[in-house]
Amino acid sequence: MSEDFDSIRFKKRAYSLDELTLVPGARTVDPDLCSVTFTLGEKLLPTPILASAMDSVVSPQSAASLSRQGVLAVLNLQGLWTRYLRAEDQLAAIASSPDTDYISLMQRLYAEPVKAELVEKRIAEMKASCSLVAVSSVPQDVLGLLPIIEKGGVDFLFVQSTVTSTVHVGVHKPLQLAELCAQTSIPVIAGNCSNYQVARELLKSGIAGLLIGIGPGAACTSRGVLGIGVPMGTAIIDGARARDDHFAETGERIAVIADGGILNSGDICKALACGADGVMLGSVFSRAEGAPGLGFHWGMATPSPVLPRGTRIKVRSLGSYEKIVHGPASLDNGLHNLIGALKTSMGTLGAQNIGELQGVDIYVAPSILAEGKAYQSAQRLGMGSL
Amino acid sequence: MSEDFDSIRFKKRAYSLDELTLVPGARTVDPDLCSVTFTLGEKLLPTPILASAMDSVVSPQSAASLSRQGVLAVLNLQGLWTRYLRAEDQLAAIASSPDTDYISLMQRLYAEPVKAELVEKRIAEMKASCSLVAVSSVPQDVLGLLPIIEKGGVDFLFVQSTVTSTVHVGVHKPLQLAELCAQTSIPVIAGNCSNYQVARELLKSGIAGLLIGIGPGAACTSRGVLGIGVPMGTAIIDGARARDDHFAETGERIAVIADGGILNSGDICKALACGADGVMLGSVFSRAEGAPGLGFHWGMATPSPVLPRGTRIKVRSLGSYEKIVHGPASLDNGLHNLIGALKTSMGTLGAQNIGELQGVDIYVAPSILAEGKAYQSAQRLGMGSL
Amino acid sequence: MSEDFDSIRFKKRAYSLDELTLVPGARTVDPDLCSVTFTLGEKLLPTPILASAMDSVVSPQSAASLSRQGVLAVLNLQGLWTRYLRAEDQLAAIASSPDTDYISLMQRLYAEPVKAELVEKRIAEMKASCSLVAVSSVPQDVLGLLPIIEKGGVDFLFVQSTVTSTVHVGVHKPLQLAELCAQTSIPVIAGNCSNYQVARELLKSGIAGLLIGIGPGAACTSRGVLGIGVPMGTAIIDGARARDDHFAETGERIAVIADGGILNSGDICKALACGADGVMLGSVFSRAEGAPGLGFHWGMATPSPVLPRGTRIKVRSLGSYEKIVHGPASLDNGLHNLIGALKTSMGTLGAQNIGELQGVDIYVAPSILAEGKAYQSAQRLGMGSL
Amino acid sequence: MSEDFDSIRFKKRAYSLDELTLVPGARTVDPDLCSVTFTLGEKLLPTPILASAMDSVVSPQSAASLSRQGVLAVLNLQGLWTRYLRAEDQLAAIASSPDTDYISLMQRLYAEPVKAELVEKRIAEMKASCSLVAVSSVPQDVLGLLPIIEKGGVDFLFVQSTVTSTVHVGVHKPLQLAELCAQTSIPVIAGNCSNYQVARELLKSGIAGLLIGIGPGAACTSRGVLGIGVPMGTAIIDGARARDDHFAETGERIAVIADGGILNSGDICKALACGADGVMLGSVFSRAEGAPGLGFHWGMATPSPVLPRGTRIKVRSLGSYEKIVHGPASLDNGLHNLIGALKTSMGTLGAQNIGELQGVDIYVAPSILAEGKAYQSAQRLGMGSL
Repeated sequence: MSEDFDSIRFKKRAYSLDELTLVPGARTVDPDLCSVTFTLGEKLLPTPILASAMDSVVSPQSAASLSRQGVLAVLNLQGLWTRYLRAEDQLAAIASSPDTDYISLMQRLYAEPVKAELVEKRIAEMKASCSLVAVSSVPQDVLGLLPIIEKGGVDFLFVQSTVTSTVHVGVHKPLQLAELCAQTSIPVIAGNCSNYQVARELLKSGIAGLLIGIGPGAACTSRGVLGIGVPMGTAIIDGARARDDHFAETGERIAVIADGGILNSGDICKALACGADGVMLGSVFSRAEGAPGLGFHWGMATPSPVLPRGTRIKVRSLGSYEKIVHGPASLDNGLHNLIGALKTSMGTLGAQNIGELQGVDIYVAPSILAEGKAYQSAQRLGMGSL
Repeated sequence: MSEDFDSIRFKKRAYSLDELTLVPGARTVDPDLCSVTFTLGEKLLPTPILASAMDSVVSPQSAASLSRQGVLAVLNLQGLWTRYLRAEDQLAAIASSPDTDYISLMQRLYAEPVKAELVEKRIAEMKASCSLVAVSSVPQDVLGLLPIIEKGGVDFLFVQSTVTSTVHVGVHKPLQLAELCAQTSIPVIAGNCSNYQVARELLKSGIAGLLIGIGPGAACTSRGVLGIGVPMGTAIIDGARARDDHFAETGERIAVIADGGILNSGDICKALACGADGVMLGSVFSRAEGAPGLGFHWGMATPSPVLPRGTRIKVRSLGSYEKIVHGPASLDNGLHNLIGALKTSMGTLGAQNIGELQGVDIYVAPSILAEGKAYQSAQRLGMGSL
Repeated sequence: MSEDFDSIRFKKRAYSLDELTLVPGARTVDPDLCSVTFTLGEKLLPTPILASAMDSVVSPQSAASLSRQGVLAVLNLQGLWTRYLRAEDQLAAIASSPDTDYISLMQRLYAEPVKAELVEKRIAEMKASCSLVAVSSVPQDVLGLLPIIEKGGVDFLFVQSTVTSTVHVGVHKPLQLAELCAQTSIPVIAGNCSNYQVARELLKSGIAGLLIGIGPGAACTSRGVLGIGVPMGTAIIDGARARDDHFAETGERIAVIADGGILNSGDICKALACGADGVMLGSVFSRAEGAPGLGFHWGMATPSPVLPRGTRIKVRSLGSYEKIVHGPASLDNGLHNLIGALKTSMGTLGAQNIGELQGVDIYVAPSILAEGKAYQSAQRLGMGSL
Repeated sequence: MSEDFDSIRFKKRAYSLDELTLVPGARTVDPDLCSVTFTLGEKLLPTPILASAMDSVVSPQSAASLSRQGVLAVLNLQGLWTRYLRAEDQLAAIASSPDTDYISLMQRLYAEPVKAELVEKRIAEMKASCSLVAVSSVPQDVLGLLPIIEKGGVDFLFVQSTVTSTVHVGVHKPLQLAELCAQTSIPVIAGNCSNYQVARELLKSGIAGLLIGIGPGAACTSRGVLGIGVPMGTAIIDGARARDDHFAETGERIAVIADGGILNSGDICKALACGADGVMLGSVFSRAEGAPGLGFHWGMATPSPVLPRGTRIKVRSLGSYEKIVHGPASLDNGLHNLIGALKTSMGTLGAQNIGELQGVDIYVAPSILAEGKAYQSAQRLGMGSL
């Protein structure tokens, strides 16, 4: 078959995590000997897991709980907590809003301006209760907030937009990452990005970490609304290759963090095997007991005043943060004991640390439901007496 | 694996829009700086969006509403409005007909002859209320109607059949597009077509636009009934390549319009990125408040007296034409604020105009539901405690 | 990616009809000028459609009805009609048997021996009411029945087994097709087969037609039970290539008939475009008013005493044989007006006869549900406000 | 399309059994002449079917029933039967436990230590009632149990872990397979494994059989929890190639047993055609009348105290062990008469023994539901009047 014009126009076939599977080799390791530590900037974090800067996931209170489990929680400085003194009320209002109304309600609630004193207050609350404090801002507001962020003793500053470019055409001069990094001693983690060339450029700006992931999140509808999105397997591989090539040229190793579409422990293992150094989780933590979303999960693009690009998902509770991160598990679907599963997977794959996990064999495989799961599928579909 | 006889017999693997995704690059643009204008013939249209010549989509009244939003609505001159003086009655009858009976009812209603005086009247109504008037006819009737069309001051004449060929074998001499184009000063837009060679021939006939799309429409069952249909990604790429090669040879740039299977703003972005200059939408506009289909959508092949090749779809209201075209959106699925989404997508992809959008990176990707949406899929399938 | 051992072990990727789509070219033809006649042996049949030798599809009565529509109906000489004088009673018993019991009931009913006098009677009944008489026998019984078949004036003799080989290892000497063909002047149609080399051998035996299709039937579960089955697109292409190569070598053109998995008019068009000369339909005709299955459809492997390899499907009535074969259609899904759809498809594809249809462009495409049908899929899956 | 970094990182596309289909050739064989015997160690087993060492599948009682059908049942020495004198009580408790509680209950029940006297007792029970006795142990406990196993006259010793490696890093020295094989005269069957290189190494250790299969089981959730799993088609082909290359080098032919994800007779045929010498079945036998699971099926990883990686499936009864293994079948879905189906498949494919079956043609095909089953799918999805 000839592929002609299509093959010219389509750059490549991209793969989602769902299409990948990890393959054991000749060596196994006792899981207890597997190290899952993660270096971000000059800090050594106990786990490679971060919690997303989403209002349904990270509040000052949940950040403290996550910190106790070794998870670095990132507070969104453009979320409800910096707009309202008692954001619990707004979160409760969202949780009790019917499916037909929540978008308008969110649009209204997020129209309230961010207040400098609340930014200061939230950072102070986290400083008092978390071993490390991480906050996130959109690029256009980060310079204005920087004095408060620095004064508050923040450990990591995330600068996030849907898509971070290296050239921006607009009436306002965009944030220059290199200038920000030069201006502050706080390690800057920037993104999101999904492309080798762009990643190469961003890695030169002095950042401590690069966020990979465009459109894959559970609550994200970018691919439907904008036609934009990069399947995570391919996105991580391209980003990790940029990191490796940057390291080969400069000797500087910058963390690559996979952000979006990582739904359970199997996805964590696959994202790291594709080359990520860390993973950022949203939906799983929105389902912890005590999560700020009160049984719901949504993205930060959902309350957009003119073009919502996220949805609100109803989520069931999975139990405590401890159960989710360190187990013991009482669920068999990869939502409990994320770290135990990661260590077991690493041991099975013979990887003693995340660097070794990044080199294990990966196969492209039929969707996770296809292989050996025909039985369950058949039952689901009500086929005959199967 | 050898592909032997299959690989000889199958011309290529063709791709649907659902299998494609757009990939940001190094540059972003402020969406306010992105231009979405579209040149058709010698007119500059404010948006690249057209409304399909289907009775559930365009009436003289809805054409006016769409025109106010910058959408070029095309009235079907072989639809109910030129067969009945008070077509509202027939539309209401279709809307109240049960699922088991609507095809016979439509067959009966569309058996009524088209009346010249109603053609004249409908054109006059549109002339009075639309900034630009566009009408559509089947090839066999267009010469007969041409005097009325010209007299009425129509701005664009669409000549549409399921498949437009360059050679027709039949007892009646088929319409010669080149002769029609030579005979009238109204810009002619013709189709549909899905093939590079045919497109190359049609582009030589003097037309102002070429409609691409065979079988993909939401209400179309051609692939099931006839085995015929071309996935839209590939169809648009082939048509756009024909346009570009025609331009390279002649210096004449003719618009390519993707018609069918474009369901929301993400699809619009992908169709344009594949190379279309404009897009023709049916189902979305059939769901506007005040749409003539009164909560239903159907194709013009549905009432075929001997071989219906379309179905009637029940559609829910999405709100006003303004909300659909220009927002603000209160839905997160790409059905509100089509132009806002297009500009946001263009900005994210660094495309300042549609010509630049036609050059952005495209990946082949798993179906839109697969990537990162396993969460939703799993919920949908009732899997375990996910 | 390396394919190593898999690529050695797997002979090729095979394609189903569902993965194929037909692509119009530069020429169209008035459907009224398209000829659908089909030469089998030395007879010219009015349509390329045959009705399968299954008890739910062909009885002496339904054969007459089908004959009036130009369909060649094949009576199974090992079915109920040659085992029971009043087979209507057994058919009614099957139709009223619950899902849990029908297999045992069928096993019991089909244990009754075939009676020579009933074979004679059924042939006589068909001779009296059909323009052409076709019967089918399993290979092991055909020589025994041949005198009755010849005496009855049968026009076509089908010799069918699940898989016809050219070499058989067994205690009993298998039927030698070449000997049978030499022994009788009745044109023999044999099968089934799905493989180029085997087809080449079978074509040398003097047969008038070759049946292609292993495992694809709607009521067939061979692929599940035996792991055996060949996707029909590839099976037909391989068989048609064998026919063409046989013709090139010998000048003898033998009909290739696609048998199984052809569900509606779109599938008929695609099967012929892949190279079949005729198509054999089961499930569609089991749904005609007056079909012998009385609302059910099953395969001849279902009543196997030790290993049923077929299932019983409940089917809804589609209306008269005339509506199904010649329309006019009041359904839009390719189950009404099969011949009208075939001629329209041929006209659209520019094929004036089935020989030309065998040469039209075919694309491999996403499954019929994927392209442009995301709208319907999304509705079906209850996604958001789509 | 370029595949660049992905194609470097992904080792290959792996195939599941569901994606494969077997293709008849020029020869058929009378099924009665097809031999299905299977050589394991120096014993000739009447069938190539084994029953998995799972508590829902094999008890001392069910082992006897399976033995009478020619199936080698493997008792898990770390299951309930060696922890409890009256394990029937614990099995009943699991069967009556609700979906929300069974994992905690299993975790509690499997925390009870294994007792040497019960190991001895169970082996004695099987010795008294089975023609051949097979038991399974995890590697870390096998040396401790070996005296009892040898004393009990066990015929086959299975040493199973999720993934068997050739190098293990850990505080405790892992079991050395070669030492075990040297130390005992009982034939050792070890696994599981899914990789050519590892298989090559394991085959040198003196084992009599190698178990292939990681993650595909019906009750296994390894791919979801750990991201690990190898589609069975590819896993078997790689293992079989290792066996063949080992044989070519050493003249020693060691059995390869496919373990996991083999759901019915079609899968058995495909697993053997991919190169397996035997197949190990779990879910099918958990559904026999008298199966120890009492209507449920679960994996041995389900009761893991910290990381359950299996699920409990509710299963419907299929009837007696005889009906399942030797028929006659009264189901048409490949769950009755496994051996009859295997012989029929072999006869159809022209394979007189399993060695010949390992050489038949295999195609990669659309999922078993796609080909020719659109009819059933369409009904399932409630599409139109199909």
